[in-house]
Amino acid sequence: VEKLTIIKLGGSLITDKKTPLKAREGVIARLAKEIVSAAKTYRGKIIIGHGSGSFGHSAAAKYQTQKGLSSSLSLRKKLQGVSEVADVASRLTKIVVKHLRRAGIPAVAFAPGSFIYADKQKGKRFFVEPIKEALKREVVPLVYGDVVFDKSQGYGIFSTEKVINVLVKGLAKDYQFDRIIYCGDTNGVYGADGKAIPVINSANFSKIKKAIGISGATDVTGGMYHKVAESLKLAKKYKTRILIINGKTPGLLKKAIQGKKVPGTVINSSMNR
Amino acid sequence: VEKLTIIKLGGSLITDKKTPLKAREGVIARLAKEIVSAAKTYRGKIIIGHGSGSFGHSAAAKYQTQKGLSSSLSLRKKLQGVSEVADVASRLTKIVVKHLRRAGIPAVAFAPGSFIYADKQKGKRFFVEPIKEALKREVVPLVYGDVVFDKSQGYGIFSTEKVINVLVKGLAKDYQFDRIIYCGDTNGVYGADGKAIPVINSANFSKIKKAIGISGATDVTGGMYHKVAESLKLAKKYKTRILIINGKTPGLLKKAIQGKKVPGTVINSSMNR
Repeated sequence: VEKLTIIKLGGSLITDKKTPLKAREGVIARLAKEIVSAAKTYRGKIIIGHGSGSFGHSAAAKYQTQKGLSSSLSLRKKLQGVSEVADVASRLTKIVVKHLRRAGIPAVAFAPGSFIYADKQKGKRFFVEPIKEALKREVVPLVYGDVVFDKSQGYGIFSTEKVINVLVKGLAKDYQFDRIIYCGDTNGVYGADGKAIPVINSANFSKIKKAIGISGATDVTGGMYHKVAESLKLAKKYKTRILIINGKTPGLLKKAIQGKKVPGTVINSSMNR
Repeated sequence: VEKLTIIKLGGSLITDKKTPLKAREGVIARLAKEIVSAAKTYRGKIIIGHGSGSFGHSAAAKYQTQKGLSSSLSLRKKLQGVSEVADVASRLTKIVVKHLRRAGIPAVAFAPGSFIYADKQKGKRFFVEPIKEALKREVVPLVYGDVVFDKSQGYGIFSTEKVINVLVKGLAKDYQFDRIIYCGDTNGVYGADGKAIPVINSANFSKIKKAIGISGATDVTGGMYHKVAESLKLAKKYKTRILIINGKTPGLLKKAIQGKKVPGTVINSSMNR
């Protein structure tokens, strides 16, 4: 069984919060170089995902895409919204692919809306054969948050985290997940004292729940609490660990891929980091 | 069983042959309006495909993407090529989606590389549930020629025609195909006299084979002969007809969608147009 690391580049890290549809290309280029550099010694495959940040979220909010056909908009507006949000979702992907390729990473984007079919906003069926073949051939798959069609509500939004969860499920027979690295713009998951909690596991999760809920590190796709709860489930089920690190600090991502100890939060099924 | 029309906008029709990576946006906008106009009276669903023209073909030729891993390039070049060609393939798609949406068509692009898995350059497995759901919800799926991963050769190119063939196979249980319209830049399939052959079917195909072979209307993905032979198979197997019309003539596409008689070539399993 081969090893695999999944890296998510956070939307708030790689896009400009103040200017819609503006990527932080310098940050993306640096992170791409860190991945290449780490890959020289890391003996495993890599999948990259990226958040949407200032690209996807405003259009998705405007058209209530998350609600699917149950939104209060007219059918005409709903349909226009699906087309527009799906279009915007992959625009940042083009920029990320460009920088990955420039750094020497043969990245190919896979469209979640084309390989995932949802029901009640959960992955009902998915098709990962092309991604498996790509990994086998040393291609680096790139995924992102996307409009995904849904049996119950017509369509909805699949966050990058949800796409990653689908990939973990779909690839679990073929790969052992070394770690899933959420590379964002915080130093990890903050506790009540404002400092990053080093380790979160089943034993201490209930105690720190409240502190996580009030953390400033939230996002539109469910917030940090949801992210941690989902990560803990994933860590248990697939015997992996999830790292939440600060991508603004140069060198952290590289070390994290290589398995070196880095500041941040580790979500694990045991007390070990 | 609902009705469905598949329209392919030819690459040489919607891109500028002389300038790489330049779309003929005026032509795309006009064709989008014709589709909207026809849809007012056409009682069926629509899927749109587009060729790559001056977008995809030069990069694909440079990296011998069609040959997959059996090409003579270094592994590094091969991998760079896969990333680059897959990236370029969907660039024209963004322009087509923009004009379709402007005309009022809620188009969503589906990435063939994400929903088709090939073997020896043939569709081995495919995943059309998201496209089915989209059609059900009045969304118009848009497909294109793409890099498709392949069990035998690692990867290869799937022309828009091959993608359409996969869709016909995948949707045959749910839809009756009214017609497949190849909207190109010729008046149809030219015979030895330089005029468009009105009807091609099993009865006359063997006679006109030679004339088709020497036609000027060829393209990089196999030429007109291959296109006609594949169309004839499709027409027989799925009881549909394939129209080859000139998209440069305003109004033809609209009439063709509505089922009106238009100049061009009809490929049919019987002698009827």
